[in-house]
Amino acid sequence: MRAVDLIRKKRDAGKHSREEIDFLVSGYTRGDIPDYQMAAWLMAALLRGLNHAEISALTEAMLDSGAVVDLSSLPGRKVDKHSTGGVGDKTSLILAPIVAAGGLTVPMISGRGLGHTGGTLDKLESIPGFNTSLSLEAFRRVLGECGMALIGQTAEIAPADKKIYALRDSTSTVENIGLICASIMSKKLAEGIDALVLDVKTGSGAFMQKEEDAVQLAEVMVETAQRMGKKSVALITDMNQPLGRMAGHSNEIVECIEVLRGTGPKDLRDLSVELSAWMFFLGERSASVEQGRHLAEKMINSGQALETFRKVIELQGGDPRIIDNTSLLPAARSQISVVSPHSGYIRDTNCMQFGIALAMLGGGREKKEDGIDHGVGLEFHKRIGDHVASDETLVTVHYNSEAKLKEATALIAASFEIGEQAPPSGPLIRLIIGGLPG
Amino acid sequence: MRAVDLIRKKRDAGKHSREEIDFLVSGYTRGDIPDYQMAAWLMAALLRGLNHAEISALTEAMLDSGAVVDLSSLPGRKVDKHSTGGVGDKTSLILAPIVAAGGLTVPMISGRGLGHTGGTLDKLESIPGFNTSLSLEAFRRVLGECGMALIGQTAEIAPADKKIYALRDSTSTVENIGLICASIMSKKLAEGIDALVLDVKTGSGAFMQKEEDAVQLAEVMVETAQRMGKKSVALITDMNQPLGRMAGHSNEIVECIEVLRGTGPKDLRDLSVELSAWMFFLGERSASVEQGRHLAEKMINSGQALETFRKVIELQGGDPRIIDNTSLLPAARSQISVVSPHSGYIRDTNCMQFGIALAMLGGGREKKEDGIDHGVGLEFHKRIGDHVASDETLVTVHYNSEAKLKEATALIAASFEIGEQAPPSGPLIRLIIGGLPG
Repeated sequence: MRAVDLIRKKRDAGKHSREEIDFLVSGYTRGDIPDYQMAAWLMAALLRGLNHAEISALTEAMLDSGAVVDLSSLPGRKVDKHSTGGVGDKTSLILAPIVAAGGLTVPMISGRGLGHTGGTLDKLESIPGFNTSLSLEAFRRVLGECGMALIGQTAEIAPADKKIYALRDSTSTVENIGLICASIMSKKLAEGIDALVLDVKTGSGAFMQKEEDAVQLAEVMVETAQRMGKKSVALITDMNQPLGRMAGHSNEIVECIEVLRGTGPKDLRDLSVELSAWMFFLGERSASVEQGRHLAEKMINSGQALETFRKVIELQGGDPRIIDNTSLLPAARSQISVVSPHSGYIRDTNCMQFGIALAMLGGGREKKEDGIDHGVGLEFHKRIGDHVASDETLVTVHYNSEAKLKEATALIAASFEIGEQAPPSGPLIRLIIGGLPG
Repeated sequence: MRAVDLIRKKRDAGKHSREEIDFLVSGYTRGDIPDYQMAAWLMAALLRGLNHAEISALTEAMLDSGAVVDLSSLPGRKVDKHSTGGVGDKTSLILAPIVAAGGLTVPMISGRGLGHTGGTLDKLESIPGFNTSLSLEAFRRVLGECGMALIGQTAEIAPADKKIYALRDSTSTVENIGLICASIMSKKLAEGIDALVLDVKTGSGAFMQKEEDAVQLAEVMVETAQRMGKKSVALITDMNQPLGRMAGHSNEIVECIEVLRGTGPKDLRDLSVELSAWMFFLGERSASVEQGRHLAEKMINSGQALETFRKVIELQGGDPRIIDNTSLLPAARSQISVVSPHSGYIRDTNCMQFGIALAMLGGGREKKEDGIDHGVGLEFHKRIGDHVASDETLVTVHYNSEAKLKEATALIAASFEIGEQAPPSGPLIRLIIGGLPG
């Protein structure tokens, strides 16, 4: 088998066998296939497409490039959730304590923020002392002690994905559903889980802005998980505005604690409960999603979920006092309001722009190497459908530097569409794909 | 400007400006743009296509990556011919002496054979002592003394093409009309010529097997030449069977000498005269193609063309005695006949297979680094439309090693289609594109 022939095959819209995909991925990971051949193949795959069998083979080959975390020493079912990312999307830090408190194991390997989206690891690191770089041994220990643990990708997990992703980033071959699916699923399936709940965002703040693209990605991911013997469901959820009131890092931790206390914004609580309910159902902890919902509510109302969050912070080296005293979290020095230019109803937002504005203020990265200011953030006072008066505050901007402040606030102001008529209201959860035992 | 954005643009079927093409080609040639980004762009360009303006810009950027040979010290018009290659295609070595003898300058920079096709340089090097690696200074001197010279590509000529071609070869991005055109034309226009005659082959022994592809390539090449102020014409010619009776190296030299003596096979002589006639016309040495034809015939019949060939061999260090004594050329030790399995008419041939069989016997390369056996060759006794008796010889195989002899002869035998009905005969020159002053 020769890489040049496989490139030609995909170029001419051919379908690869599992052996051919294995040859490409293992050869590239070992360094036998050079970057330039992989780059040509990636572009051919992006433009010609990959079918479901090819995507499964690619996912599996990338998974097999590294180790699968062995969680067999831990009792019970292991479940996780993956979100395709958005602005203010912090459900991981709410549902993991809920589901762990409810008796399942949640081995969560997360990523960092890039571009307009936040990353779970970055949010956690706003907690003083919190260590997201545990060894696999420590990861297992924390999981055993509190039912959840939160770490970053290790060198053992899907090294092929790491290498291929870097190449895709520099060759404009990111935006392909098959390649995206394989990248996500190879890492998630390496967690040694039994079931996976997917939150596929769609709307102006999502990678998949069009619902049809989100649905297609969701279908491919659910099918890939099921082919590999994992239970899976995907919720297509709205990302036309930030989730919850907070976007940033330490302010999102504060909001998670609020939801775990039984307060916090309704949209964030509802979605966290719904995703938890599906995790309970697929993890066979509840006989139905409805029962899972009740269990999730119980874990919040009893305070057990909050105690699990406190415990995991402690076990991973963080300061657990932040649970009761959020002023221990980093905060920005200054605040400024973005106000409404006139009265009316908020009809829509260009949600991605909020993420970009946050990054401008230091709360996001343009390049992987960039640092993060955990204290800066945006606080949203109004949601789509709300009425605002002229000069009423839309967003409070928490900032440390005035460097790009003007640019950022202008961007935020321009991202609201305010009109005379209230817009029709849409559901937060738009569609559910999969979910039946695969 | 960033390469990653230009890759994205072409991926999304965008059209590049001249500045964008320049950025890519000059950046890649300098080494600022890595192989993997160029590979991704090449695949996107192959699958999305390049329009005529982009192809012109690419040709010019590749031409500008190196030097244009300065032939201003030589009087008169400079003309050349380029063929897309085939089996037994040896017209360069016939028409260059004809056209040089007729008063024009033919600065021919040629390539080597690869795959199933032969290369002019390889054929020349079967002449003992012939040096195809002249310095540009020596090239100009030989041109001044006999009106023609034959060398290989130098480091000064279109270095971008050299680098890009190697990458295309290993990333399956060769087969695109725009990329092929730019590669050919950037080298040919670097010869400092005033006019260029193109022989675009089509049929089972050509790179462009379908006539429509050949026509499209011819149109793009003629237009590109004309945009750059050169006169140009393309002849679409038949390559469903070998040109002439001989395929190999030294045996093709012998056949060229025969045609220059006024004998030799009709198809080879006709095409050589026709291409020479167009060179005379575009080089303003004749008022019409018809007059060019007469001039070409005159150069053959008077012996002047053969004398020019003798002179160029001598000037480039070769043994001129081969003109009168072809036994001084390398010859294979053994011969074997491939015979017809039954009587009938030759209806068609799979011409590319002859080239592959010849390469198997050592008369061609699979990789650029491979050596060549100049003595081996195929001698074709029958042409499409000829009647053959059972057991009559179709091809005499001249070989040195028995290593792949069986495989090669079987391939040759399987490449003839013999049936009861004579096939309809088609013209050697199928179509003429361009030719009017651009």
